[in-house]
Amino acid sequence: TIVEHVKNYFSEKIEPILKGKHVVVTAGPTRERIDPVRYITNFSTGKMGYAVAEVAAQLGAKVTLISGPVNLDVPKGVKVVHVESAEDMYNAVLSHYENADAVVKTAAVADYKPAQIHDQKVKKQDGDAVINLVRTKDILAELGKRKAHQILVGFAAETTNVDEYARKKLKSKNADMIVANNVTTKGAGFGSDTNIVTFYKADGTKKEFSILSKQKVAMEILKEVHEMLK
Amino acid sequence: TIVEHVKNYFSEKIEPILKGKHVVVTAGPTRERIDPVRYITNFSTGKMGYAVAEVAAQLGAKVTLISGPVNLDVPKGVKVVHVESAEDMYNAVLSHYENADAVVKTAAVADYKPAQIHDQKVKKQDGDAVINLVRTKDILAELGKRKAHQILVGFAAETTNVDEYARKKLKSKNADMIVANNVTTKGAGFGSDTNIVTFYKADGTKKEFSILSKQKVAMEILKEVHEMLK
Repeated sequence: TIVEHVKNYFSEKIEPILKGKHVVVTAGPTRERIDPVRYITNFSTGKMGYAVAEVAAQLGAKVTLISGPVNLDVPKGVKVVHVESAEDMYNAVLSHYENADAVVKTAAVADYKPAQIHDQKVKKQDGDAVINLVRTKDILAELGKRKAHQILVGFAAETTNVDEYARKKLKSKNADMIVANNVTTKGAGFGSDTNIVTFYKADGTKKEFSILSKQKVAMEILKEVHEMLK
Repeated sequence: TIVEHVKNYFSEKIEPILKGKHVVVTAGPTRERIDPVRYITNFSTGKMGYAVAEVAAQLGAKVTLISGPVNLDVPKGVKVVHVESAEDMYNAVLSHYENADAVVKTAAVADYKPAQIHDQKVKKQDGDAVINLVRTKDILAELGKRKAHQILVGFAAETTNVDEYARKKLKSKNADMIVANNVTTKGAGFGSDTNIVTFYKADGTKKEFSILSKQKVAMEILKEVHEMLK
């Protein structure tokens, strides 16, 4: 189990540094339906978010995991809320925001959804077709706007210009930290058990890590959350 | 396991009626990439196809299972070929067609794919967007055209006008049988362990079934294949 991995990995007693804190974690992809059969999604498997939820619970936090459709077991001691679309995700996260001490947004939420969801399966026809898309609501931006006491950690899964996009996201979303990774790098991609991340913090500091298990990355993120909550 | 379910369900010795026959089964969804992060897919879980593969192996057939991305164990005695896109599926099926005695096409293959696959993650922008789509190659139609000795079974997962679409598909694709189901009916949808199907055969006959386990549906399909191979 992930718990055992964490215990083995750290080979040390885990101190309950997040005891009394409520950590909201989002994980997985979203699905944006085109019709009853087809949908648009992404390669997120939820492993990073489930690791954050598991380790946060190990660190004593009350954990609410808001999860898109994935094939993972819910970690022990974690309350899960299942969602499908970006809109579901928006509603679930916002409804848990007021009572959260920290939000770690690992989910890969769709930026766009089909302008129309067809009631019936769209039959194929000769020739080309188009899917018209509209923007989904920006959850991180909304959380940043409404931020009171909460610590806000966002993710930036990029394939190019990681540094630039991460810094821009940190500032424009009013986040406290962005965890950036280049998903095309071996060992940092979707579905991997490892990740290669860089932390960009609101105080201007940047922290680069070598390849780590997603549990270890989760621990590093939550140590930062702990520091920022002080 | 599925094997045990089948054995229990039928409560009878399974005769190796497909011994010496090569059955090619396709299963699962396909994924059509938009960029390195996003893709278009469908709700197929592969359960129907994996049941057909498993039962066909139980019936003594040599089985090649050409599978899109699913979360299922490969049945015992079944050779699997993993594919992702409709084009991968097309190539894999065609390469196994000549030596096949029967092809059972349960896979939910994308009818359309993005006209362009972006090398880098497409950054979101203000306002709406479109995905331009082009038609994928029609695998069943191609198999129908090239048909020599093979028995060709197609599926029609519909949400409306099931009878009309199934009969049309049977004829236009030169198939020997279409297994039709209405995926919006409770007990017949994607991910379900049961299915409610109707067989439309090239001889004009139609056979309706009540709700059955996917293993039992698989057995009914393979009995028909056996009859048609005689």
